[in-house]
Amino acid sequence: MIETPSWAYGNSGTRFKVFAQRGVPRDPYEKIADAAQVHAFTGAAPTVALHIPWDKVDDYAALAEYARSLGVGLGAINANVFQDDDYMLGSVTNPDPGVRRKATDHLLECVDIMDATGSRDLKLWFSDGTNYPGQDDIRTRQDRLADALAEVYERLGQHQRMLLEYKLFEPSFYTMDVPDWGTSFAHCVALGPKAVVCVDTGHHAPGTNIEFIVAMLLRAGKLGAFDFNSRFYADDDLMVGSADPFQLFRIMHEVVRGGGLDPATAVAFMLDQCHNIEPKIQGQIRSVMNVQEATAKALLVDAPALKAAQDAGDVLGANAVLMDAYNTDVRPLLVQWREDKGLAGDPIAAYKASGYFEKIVAERVGGTQAGWGA
Amino acid sequence: MIETPSWAYGNSGTRFKVFAQRGVPRDPYEKIADAAQVHAFTGAAPTVALHIPWDKVDDYAALAEYARSLGVGLGAINANVFQDDDYMLGSVTNPDPGVRRKATDHLLECVDIMDATGSRDLKLWFSDGTNYPGQDDIRTRQDRLADALAEVYERLGQHQRMLLEYKLFEPSFYTMDVPDWGTSFAHCVALGPKAVVCVDTGHHAPGTNIEFIVAMLLRAGKLGAFDFNSRFYADDDLMVGSADPFQLFRIMHEVVRGGGLDPATAVAFMLDQCHNIEPKIQGQIRSVMNVQEATAKALLVDAPALKAAQDAGDVLGANAVLMDAYNTDVRPLLVQWREDKGLAGDPIAAYKASGYFEKIVAERVGGTQAGWGA
Amino acid sequence: MIETPSWAYGNSGTRFKVFAQRGVPRDPYEKIADAAQVHAFTGAAPTVALHIPWDKVDDYAALAEYARSLGVGLGAINANVFQDDDYMLGSVTNPDPGVRRKATDHLLECVDIMDATGSRDLKLWFSDGTNYPGQDDIRTRQDRLADALAEVYERLGQHQRMLLEYKLFEPSFYTMDVPDWGTSFAHCVALGPKAVVCVDTGHHAPGTNIEFIVAMLLRAGKLGAFDFNSRFYADDDLMVGSADPFQLFRIMHEVVRGGGLDPATAVAFMLDQCHNIEPKIQGQIRSVMNVQEATAKALLVDAPALKAAQDAGDVLGANAVLMDAYNTDVRPLLVQWREDKGLAGDPIAAYKASGYFEKIVAERVGGTQAGWGA
Amino acid sequence: MIETPSWAYGNSGTRFKVFAQRGVPRDPYEKIADAAQVHAFTGAAPTVALHIPWDKVDDYAALAEYARSLGVGLGAINANVFQDDDYMLGSVTNPDPGVRRKATDHLLECVDIMDATGSRDLKLWFSDGTNYPGQDDIRTRQDRLADALAEVYERLGQHQRMLLEYKLFEPSFYTMDVPDWGTSFAHCVALGPKAVVCVDTGHHAPGTNIEFIVAMLLRAGKLGAFDFNSRFYADDDLMVGSADPFQLFRIMHEVVRGGGLDPATAVAFMLDQCHNIEPKIQGQIRSVMNVQEATAKALLVDAPALKAAQDAGDVLGANAVLMDAYNTDVRPLLVQWREDKGLAGDPIAAYKASGYFEKIVAERVGGTQAGWGA
Repeated sequence: MIETPSWAYGNSGTRFKVFAQRGVPRDPYEKIADAAQVHAFTGAAPTVALHIPWDKVDDYAALAEYARSLGVGLGAINANVFQDDDYMLGSVTNPDPGVRRKATDHLLECVDIMDATGSRDLKLWFSDGTNYPGQDDIRTRQDRLADALAEVYERLGQHQRMLLEYKLFEPSFYTMDVPDWGTSFAHCVALGPKAVVCVDTGHHAPGTNIEFIVAMLLRAGKLGAFDFNSRFYADDDLMVGSADPFQLFRIMHEVVRGGGLDPATAVAFMLDQCHNIEPKIQGQIRSVMNVQEATAKALLVDAPALKAAQDAGDVLGANAVLMDAYNTDVRPLLVQWREDKGLAGDPIAAYKASGYFEKIVAERVGGTQAGWGA
Repeated sequence: MIETPSWAYGNSGTRFKVFAQRGVPRDPYEKIADAAQVHAFTGAAPTVALHIPWDKVDDYAALAEYARSLGVGLGAINANVFQDDDYMLGSVTNPDPGVRRKATDHLLECVDIMDATGSRDLKLWFSDGTNYPGQDDIRTRQDRLADALAEVYERLGQHQRMLLEYKLFEPSFYTMDVPDWGTSFAHCVALGPKAVVCVDTGHHAPGTNIEFIVAMLLRAGKLGAFDFNSRFYADDDLMVGSADPFQLFRIMHEVVRGGGLDPATAVAFMLDQCHNIEPKIQGQIRSVMNVQEATAKALLVDAPALKAAQDAGDVLGANAVLMDAYNTDVRPLLVQWREDKGLAGDPIAAYKASGYFEKIVAERVGGTQAGWGA
Repeated sequence: MIETPSWAYGNSGTRFKVFAQRGVPRDPYEKIADAAQVHAFTGAAPTVALHIPWDKVDDYAALAEYARSLGVGLGAINANVFQDDDYMLGSVTNPDPGVRRKATDHLLECVDIMDATGSRDLKLWFSDGTNYPGQDDIRTRQDRLADALAEVYERLGQHQRMLLEYKLFEPSFYTMDVPDWGTSFAHCVALGPKAVVCVDTGHHAPGTNIEFIVAMLLRAGKLGAFDFNSRFYADDDLMVGSADPFQLFRIMHEVVRGGGLDPATAVAFMLDQCHNIEPKIQGQIRSVMNVQEATAKALLVDAPALKAAQDAGDVLGANAVLMDAYNTDVRPLLVQWREDKGLAGDPIAAYKASGYFEKIVAERVGGTQAGWGA
Repeated sequence: MIETPSWAYGNSGTRFKVFAQRGVPRDPYEKIADAAQVHAFTGAAPTVALHIPWDKVDDYAALAEYARSLGVGLGAINANVFQDDDYMLGSVTNPDPGVRRKATDHLLECVDIMDATGSRDLKLWFSDGTNYPGQDDIRTRQDRLADALAEVYERLGQHQRMLLEYKLFEPSFYTMDVPDWGTSFAHCVALGPKAVVCVDTGHHAPGTNIEFIVAMLLRAGKLGAFDFNSRFYADDDLMVGSADPFQLFRIMHEVVRGGGLDPATAVAFMLDQCHNIEPKIQGQIRSVMNVQEATAKALLVDAPALKAAQDAGDVLGANAVLMDAYNTDVRPLLVQWREDKGLAGDPIAAYKASGYFEKIVAERVGGTQAGWGA
C-alpha cells in the first residue's frame, strides 16, 4: 500500500521555471479528489500525505471525512519550515533563537494537526544548512537540532512517530544539517523508539548503495518510511522506477528480506515526486504501478535457492537467482491481481477513458493553482 | 577584467524558496547602478551582461548611455528560451515546429539587440532536454539544434560571436541537449570560427577536470568565455572560488599557460552566480576579488622553473613550483594594485562604508523586485 | 556478434589482491580455447581480441589457424603501453623523447601484427596522465599525443582502423591525457576517417549519460566500438548488464536507432571485463547473454509508435513505448533463437554440463597462469 | 604529531602496474629507518604504523628497540585480512565459517602483537563485500561482522582501542560491508567506548562533506583517527592536501573546533598514501608539511570574531573570517617553528642535501623490495 503526496497534484518545477498545467487543484479538497482517482484505478494508494501549511484548512475533521467519502484516508503530516523569509539561515538550527522558537512551534502545531487527522506519522525534512564554509558552526547547529527534536518528540502521542528525513544537498550547498542516514540514525537513536529514519531515494551522493542502507536500518529497527522517487543526477524527483528500475527492485528485495512488508514493522511507503512536465495523476498512477512491479518481482525471488547459492559461495548462481526474478515480466500477474479486485487491468488506459481529466480541466478554471509556494 | 551579470543583483533562490532581500533592483537601470558599484570599488568589473527578456527595455541606446554615465558598459546578451510555458518540452529542439520557430526568432531578436547595444557576444544556454527515457529522440533533437544554431550563426555580424554553453543536468534530468564540452565543441566546429564554447564552472559531472577542458579548448582556439561560479555538489552557483579556491587557481593557470589573458584570444570572463542568502553587491565584489587573487597567483607561477622540472620528470619538484605560487598570500599585492589605481585597498570595507546599501534599501520601496522570473 | 577479450580468461583483480582461480590459461592458445567455448555455447562470440605483449607469439598465422580450427577468429589488437617501468610518467606523452619513441614503436609493431593476423582494428588506450597539478604540461602532452597518433595513423593499411578509447581516471589521478569522449572525438576528427572512438561503458564520470554519447558519435559517424562492462562506482569492470541493465538497454536502443547494428556502420561490440571473483568462462557467457537480451529488447521497441508519441509531445506515452519493450521477458525468444541454431537453450547449464571446466582444472597444472602482468 | 605508515615506504601502484623505485626497503627495519628520516627532518612524525603480516617479525621488542634507537616509536597495528586467497569472498563476513574463524584469529593475533609493541590502536579495515547483487546476504554479513568485532573487542586490553575504518567501494564493487561512517558508527556504538571510527579522507562518495562527519563524530565522542591522503576521483591515495588543500583546512578547522587536538580526545593523525610515481620519503615529508600548514591555518582562525559573525547571521563576514586564516601564508611561521626546534627550515631541501637517498639506493641492492603484496 502506497501513500501519495498531496503536493504531487499541484504544480512543481525547477528554479528555472514552474510550468503550469491544466486542471491542477486549487485547494486541499481538489488534491484529495485527484489522489482518490489514483487509488480508484490502482487499488493500492489508499492514503494521502498532507503538507502544512500548503494543506492547511480550518476543519481537518471535515477534510478527513471528505477523503473517506472518496475512498481514501489522510496519511502523514509533512512539516514545512523552509518557505518563510525568516528561515533564510535555517529553521530549528537558525542562529536566531526567535526563529528557532517559531520553527519548533510549527512542528508542535503539526502534532496538533496529527491529533485532529488521526495521522500516525510526522515527517520532518529540514532544508537547514549553510552555503559557505564558516557561515555557521556545524556542531552548534547539531545541538540546536537535537534540542528541537527532543521537544517535539516529547509532544508525540503514544502511537505517533517522528520520521526524520535526510538529504545530501539542496537547498543548502555547503552543509545540510541532516545530510545522510548516519546523522538521521544518530539523532533517532538518541531520541528513542518513536523516532525513525525516512529514506528518500533521491537524497544520496552518487554511488551510494541505497539498499544497503535499507538493510542496515531494518536490522537496527530504525527504518520508518520511504519517500520514493527516482533520479539520474541529483534530487530529480522523477517518477519512482523510471531512472533505474533494477535499483528499485533491489531496494524492495531488501525490504522483503528484512521483513519490511510485515505490518508490524510499520514501514510507510510514500511517493515524493514532481511531475514537472507530465500529467500529474497519470504520473502518480504510473509510479504506483512501478512500485507494485518491483515489489512483485522481489516477492518472486526464490529465497531458499538464493540462500543455498549464497552459502555455497556460488557468485554467479546466487546472482542468477536474483536476476531470474528481476527478468520476469510480472505485468500479467498484476493485471490478474487488479481484475481479481474488480479493477481494470490497465489503470492508465482506464483512467484516460474515464473522462476525469477532461472534467477537471473544464471545472478548475479561475482561482490559484496549487504549487509548492501555495 | 570581469563581466558581472545583471541577474546577480536581483533575487534568486532554489526551487524551494526565493528569499527576498532588501534593496533589490526593480528594473534594468537599477541593476546597472548596482553593477557600477562593483566596478567602482574593484576597478575590475567594467561591463554588465544583460539577460533578455529580463532586461528588455524600449531604448537600448539609452540604457547603454546610462551605463556609460556610471562608468560601465553593456556586455554579452544572454538569450532566454526557458521561461515560457511553450518551452516545457524544449525550445529550439521542441518536437513542435511552431515552438522551435518562436525560440529561434527570440535568438535572432537577441542579435538585433546586440546591434543596438554594440555587444560582441551572444550567449546561448539551452535548458532543452528530456526527463524520461524515450520521451523524445536524442538524435533528432541534435538535428533541430544544429538547424537553429546555423540560422542564428548566419545572422551574426562580422565582429559578433556566439558562445555556446553546456550543462550536465537541470532543469532536464534525463538528457540535456548540450550536456558537455564535447557536444558544444562539435557544434561550434561545424558552425565556424564565430562559434565558441562557454565554460560554466558549475556545469560538470563530479570529478571532471575543468582545467583540462580549458587547456583543450585553448589549444583548439575554441574557448570563448567563462561563466564563473562555484559548487560543492551540482550547479550550486555559489561565489566563484568559495568552494575550491585551488581549482580556480588551476583553471587560471591553464588560462595563463594557453594565452587566454591575451586580448587577441578574446576569452570573456564573466560571473554567473546566485546570491541566495548573502548580500548581492558584496557577493559580487567578493567574487571579483576571488578571481583577481587566483589570477595573481597564476601569474606568479615561475614558468621556466616549472618547465624545467616537468621536462626532467621531477614530479614533486614541478608540483612544488605550482604550489609555491598558490601558497603565496597575494592580497598585499592586490591592495597595492588598487591603491595605485586610486581605489581603496579593501573594496568590501569601502563599499560598506559608502552608505550605498542603506541608500538603496531606503529608496527601492514599492514596485516589484527583479528576479529570475521577472 | 560480440568479441571477447583474451585477457578476460586470465587472472585479474584489484590493486589489493589478484585472486588465483583454477584452470586459468597459461598461454594465448589456452585463452583462445576458452574463448571458443564461449562461442560454442552462445553462438554469438565468434572473435577474440588480443592484447600485445600479453598475447605475443612467434607465429600469428599459426595462432589464427588454431583459432579457426576451434571455430573462432582473431579480432582487434590491443596495444599495451602501460606496463613497462619506462612508462611511469607516460608513454606517447612522456616528457622523455626516448620513451615516446619506444611507445610509438610499440604501436607501430601492433600494426605489423594486425597485418599478420588480418585484424581490422587497433585499439588504443593510454594510461598516460599525471597525478599532481603541475607535474607536466597538459597542453604539451596533447601535442605529443597528436604527433604519435598521426604517425600511427599513417601506418594503417587501407582497411584498418584506429579505435581511440577514453577514460576518466585510473591509473592517473589528476589528469588523463584522453579523459572523455570530447578529447577522443577531437583527435579522431583531426586524424581522419580511419580514426574512430571506442566507448568503454565504465569510463565515465558519475551521472554521465552514455547513450547520449552513443547517439552523438553515431550522428557524427565516429562510433567505432564498444568496450562493454558495468560499474557501480568507478571502472569496476563487472559483467556487462549486471549493475544497470536498463542503461544497457538504453544504449542498445540508441545503437539500433542510429543504425549501429548495420554492418556498414562497422561498430565493433567487445567485452572488456575482469572476472575477479567469479568463474571466467561462465562470466563471459553470462555477459554475452546480457548483451543479447538488451539487444533483443531494443529491437522490440515499436519505433513508429515511439515516434508518434514523441512527435505529439506525449511524455508518458513515449516513455511507456520504450518501457514496454524493456519490461518484456525476452529470454524465451533467445532460447528459441539458440535452438534454431542447434544450440542449447541455456548456455550456462550446457557449459556446466559439458565437463570443460573440470577438464581444464585437471590439465592446466604447473606453468604460470596468465594475468594482466604476464 | 603525525604517524606515517610503514607501507608508504614500499612500492605501490594501481591494478595496472606497480612501478619499482630505487632504494625501496626490503624489510620492516628498513621501512622504519626511512620513517625515522621523515621525523628527523620534520620533527612531527614520531611514530610508524605497522601492517601485519607485511611487517611481521619474530621479535617485536627488538623492532621497537630499533625504532627507538632511531628516534621514533611503533604506532598502530593494521590488520590485513584481504590478501589471502581464502578471502576472495570476504574475511570476517565470508559465507564459510572456517574462513571467518581464520580471519578473526588474525585480528586476535594482531592484539597479541599490540601487547608486544605497546601499541594503543588496532586499525581494522575490511575489504569485505560483494561484487554482484544477490551474491550474498547484506544483513547476514552484518551479523557476522558484529560477531567478529565483538570477539576482538573483548580481547582488547584496558588501554587499547579498536579503530573501525569505512570505505565506499574498492575492492568490492556492489556492497562494502562497512561503506560509510554511519555503518562504522553504528557498530562502534554497539561495541562500546573502546571502539571508535577511523576517517580515511579518500573513502567517501563524491560530494561528501568530510568535515561535517568529523564534527559529528567529535560531538559523539567517536572520532578515533584519521587516515590522511587526498583524491580527485576515488581512493587515489595521493599526498594529503595535494588535491584540495582547502578541504584539508576545513577538516582541521573542525578538529580544532571540536577539541580534536586535545590529547585527551586521543584522535590519531595518520597518513595512508601511495607514492606510486614520486619518491617515497620526500612524498611523506611533503605530506607531513601539508598537514602542518593546514593545522597552522586552522589555529589562526579568529574564533571570537567567527562566532560573533555567525551569531549575527553575517554570512559573508563569517566566511571572511575563515578565509582570512586560509589565505594567510603560514610557511614562514612553520620555518620559525622548525628552527626553534633546531631543525632546518626547509625539510625537503635538507633531506635532499643529506645524501640519505643516494645511500639507500647504493645499499639496498638485491633482495625483494617491499610492496603491498609482501
